[in-house]
Amino acid sequence: MPALRIALAQVNACVGDLPGNAALAVRWCQRAAESGADVVLLPEMLLTGYPVEDLALRESFQQASRRELDALPARLVEAGCAERLVVVGYLDADEAGPRNAAALIHRGAVVGRYFKHYLPNYGVFDEFRYFRPGNTLPVVRLGGLDLGVVICEDIWQDGGPVAALGEAGVDLLLCLNGSPYERAKDDTRGALVARRAREAGAPMAYVNLVGAQDELVFDGDSMVVDARGELLARAPQFVEHLLCAELDLPGGAWQRQGSRETVPGFELRRIDLDADGDGVGRERAPGAVPAMAEPLPDEAEVWGALVTGLCDYVHKNSFRSVVLGLSGGIDSAVVAALAVDALGADSVYGVSMPSDYSSEHSRDDAAELAKRTGLHFSVQPIAGMVGVFVEQLGLTGLAEENVQARCRGVVLMALSNADGHLVLATGNKTELAVGYSTIYGDAVGGFAPIKDVPKTLVWQLARWRNEQADRRGETPPIPPSSITKPPSAELRPDQLDSDSLPDYELLDEVLDHYVEADRGVCDLIDAGYEPALAEQIIRMVDHAEFKRRQYPPGTKISFKAFGRDRRLPITNAWREHCP
Amino acid sequence: MPALRIALAQVNACVGDLPGNAALAVRWCQRAAESGADVVLLPEMLLTGYPVEDLALRESFQQASRRELDALPARLVEAGCAERLVVVGYLDADEAGPRNAAALIHRGAVVGRYFKHYLPNYGVFDEFRYFRPGNTLPVVRLGGLDLGVVICEDIWQDGGPVAALGEAGVDLLLCLNGSPYERAKDDTRGALVARRAREAGAPMAYVNLVGAQDELVFDGDSMVVDARGELLARAPQFVEHLLCAELDLPGGAWQRQGSRETVPGFELRRIDLDADGDGVGRERAPGAVPAMAEPLPDEAEVWGALVTGLCDYVHKNSFRSVVLGLSGGIDSAVVAALAVDALGADSVYGVSMPSDYSSEHSRDDAAELAKRTGLHFSVQPIAGMVGVFVEQLGLTGLAEENVQARCRGVVLMALSNADGHLVLATGNKTELAVGYSTIYGDAVGGFAPIKDVPKTLVWQLARWRNEQADRRGETPPIPPSSITKPPSAELRPDQLDSDSLPDYELLDEVLDHYVEADRGVCDLIDAGYEPALAEQIIRMVDHAEFKRRQYPPGTKISFKAFGRDRRLPITNAWREHCP
Repeated sequence: MPALRIALAQVNACVGDLPGNAALAVRWCQRAAESGADVVLLPEMLLTGYPVEDLALRESFQQASRRELDALPARLVEAGCAERLVVVGYLDADEAGPRNAAALIHRGAVVGRYFKHYLPNYGVFDEFRYFRPGNTLPVVRLGGLDLGVVICEDIWQDGGPVAALGEAGVDLLLCLNGSPYERAKDDTRGALVARRAREAGAPMAYVNLVGAQDELVFDGDSMVVDARGELLARAPQFVEHLLCAELDLPGGAWQRQGSRETVPGFELRRIDLDADGDGVGRERAPGAVPAMAEPLPDEAEVWGALVTGLCDYVHKNSFRSVVLGLSGGIDSAVVAALAVDALGADSVYGVSMPSDYSSEHSRDDAAELAKRTGLHFSVQPIAGMVGVFVEQLGLTGLAEENVQARCRGVVLMALSNADGHLVLATGNKTELAVGYSTIYGDAVGGFAPIKDVPKTLVWQLARWRNEQADRRGETPPIPPSSITKPPSAELRPDQLDSDSLPDYELLDEVLDHYVEADRGVCDLIDAGYEPALAEQIIRMVDHAEFKRRQYPPGTKISFKAFGRDRRLPITNAWREHCP
Repeated sequence: MPALRIALAQVNACVGDLPGNAALAVRWCQRAAESGADVVLLPEMLLTGYPVEDLALRESFQQASRRELDALPARLVEAGCAERLVVVGYLDADEAGPRNAAALIHRGAVVGRYFKHYLPNYGVFDEFRYFRPGNTLPVVRLGGLDLGVVICEDIWQDGGPVAALGEAGVDLLLCLNGSPYERAKDDTRGALVARRAREAGAPMAYVNLVGAQDELVFDGDSMVVDARGELLARAPQFVEHLLCAELDLPGGAWQRQGSRETVPGFELRRIDLDADGDGVGRERAPGAVPAMAEPLPDEAEVWGALVTGLCDYVHKNSFRSVVLGLSGGIDSAVVAALAVDALGADSVYGVSMPSDYSSEHSRDDAAELAKRTGLHFSVQPIAGMVGVFVEQLGLTGLAEENVQARCRGVVLMALSNADGHLVLATGNKTELAVGYSTIYGDAVGGFAPIKDVPKTLVWQLARWRNEQADRRGETPPIPPSSITKPPSAELRPDQLDSDSLPDYELLDEVLDHYVEADRGVCDLIDAGYEPALAEQIIRMVDHAEFKRRQYPPGTKISFKAFGRDRRLPITNAWREHCP
């Protein structure tokens, strides 16, 4: 039974940084070679980063990607990886346009290419905009084993290249991924990989990107399953990792009974790397025990995603520090705690900006948060600024309330201009959904870390993060009173969120139906919600579309984040009603 | 030779307003029937408005669209349109998902349905996200004539249903469109319609929506061409219009030599409306001479598009008035003139917000603009507000400059909150491209009318609009000195745009290459631009992506507007360079 040592490089690429990503590929291949791997698998579109969006359509970028790929085989030889089969994702292009591609590299040459067959064009994905689907199926013979390659969406759809490879007979499926994080997606993904392995009758090695790109976080979660779908190895989420596994495989899948020489709809290409050499089976030290990372509990996973999203946005965009307003409330406290975890306290600047309506406990809680986390803290009262606007323009009511939030926005942006900080917006998903925020006020910022976190989950994360600290014997970062006090925007005397909004538990439930599941008002009423309440919430969501369009980007953690996941017109006369 | 009277209803639908759009359809069918039309053609997705974006995926909306369509045949009978063949665009849906569809209605029943075959998924379009392509080809026999239906993109691609209908033999092609305006697109469109008519060997009736939806303007430009591609009738752009034409057609295309009973890839469905009646040829008054609108000159067309875009955004979103800052410069002057043309002077509020750095001529030009246009004018000096921020925060340099722009933003938003005006942002495309604006400052607004107008075109439009006024004996709206003076942001003493930016003529040329044509820096250098200049401009464009994401929507007039047309990552390490 031939044994194959396989290494999955779960790495953090940066969109557009072709030389940096190529160097990353070489470095990790070298590590894999040193650990005796026969096959090194790198993620989808690694050389360009993913997703590159309209860069895929630019000829200069396509050419640069091709050049980087063309130079890679020689660099891998130099790095001592000549005898390894390296499979790496890149952007291909010819006169007919770009392709989402994987190159198979061996002994200084590209020996085969695979082009993604199923192109996702839903949710955050627009791959029909960019790519043509591929229909070639390279099957590589290495060490007497037949290996097939597929890319990401190819395993999310029934049939297609996975089924075709199953029919052709393969000993191992290699799957390259750029699969963005969503809450609990790792469960779905694991089950899916297992199912496809069983369907194809072959083990699957699944490698995913790690790190963040704008609103998307890639959580890694790379894994190897056997032909029965049993998990053999699993990488930890949110960190770069070389996942190694040694597989004893039957071999000769191609020649096995029932294997077919052709499969309808695909062009099978057999590539025999054993023909001119000895393939695998070289002398090597015994492999380490493969990693078997435990899946993270829900809050830890979400926290990991949010930290990764913020950290990579800041660093990949060359910022060194962030500034945010600290109101004493739960949202800014959680964002501050995230920022400290992502960047270190010394890179985080918190500003308390009390107005005449700010309560004493708000000021105290903001100061207390600063003390607990060690972030830089300053106080800038806004009464002076607000006063000039209110008096000169004769403002009252909502106009007066909003001027307070907008003066705070001007202060934060001024500090950003003066000191180079990235401003963080502290709004949560619930607020964004119902428009409970001031545009150009508390909504200012270059990044909005908890934009996709519903209010009830904000509280849950705060409690969890404090408990974690307790468990480790550290100071819990978030002042307990920020968690327990009733939420208020404090833009007028004795204001409470509950004056304008339903109870948050109920609100988040309804939003989950309307936003995430796209259910209509009748479904909500059928599910038992009070018609007037359901209609009120839906109206608020519809009416706030214009605000969401101008909101900063922020990390997606849900099935349907506001933004590319949910594309609705602003001008929209549709009103949900029961016929 | 059978004669057919056809009416094309070029109408303004509103996205989501199903009852309103259905009423619109009935009203225009009635007008068409009164003018003796045998066939009434309504635009793509008329019943829902277009594009509906993710509403297409919501079950409650799909059902409402189906219900509205199901009710339409009876309403058409009531309205006296029973004997007409009405073809109308709507959103269809079954268990397999939504479709971009056209219904053929006759004598109180839907007698056939066509589903769009080619789904555009480039530029602003995401139709693969929503629809499945159709492959049925209904061909309707009416008055001895065979009529085929296609939808929009179906004529922009070679082959497909147009070729199939040509092979099957039709006497007339009916084409429903939701084709957004782009500068000079009417020329392309006219040539295309003529070419497809010749290819199919049949005349084509082409009806398009008119009016605006968020960033898109539909310019109408409906037309009828004969089988040789000669223009028979053409509707004026940017207004609702019933375009009528009487066509003498050979008839019996289906039975003509060379016609085929089946065409590969499509399911031909023959619908014989003559079988149970007398079809066309009823008694009727002679038709009026068909309209033959002259294409508009470039500036008039762009102005028409911008007025339509602004007018519909304001009214369809239920605003009654707009407010904007008047700096005395050309951008705000042109936006004010547009607003007055779109909404009337009484709905436009201009605010001069001088700072310590504002020149005397700026204040005078703003007042002069107000006098010329008759808009509501007020002055709100910002020195008091700016002073508090600058002193309290100790601001200098860029931070001090930006605070001025942001205080103006706060003033405009406060007036909006107080009086219900929609705030207009006055930035142009050049500014937006290179990031020469202050986020949350001059960039605030619910709508940005000249967002897609390059600076050089802003000047050109200003001159043209003033000349138009002169020609009509009216007061030219824009103060001549706003057109002739060197542009300045006036955020520090003696500041000029030319301190920070290349000459605008040159800048707009380079932006045209880089943004519109997606050319790389090497192409620009090959085209003769100075390498350092080309690189500097490209850097500015790349670096300003984050600002564009938070910019208000505005009317698309170019081939590639910022927004859905051009989707680039913010986090993007790609730097154009010559290898």
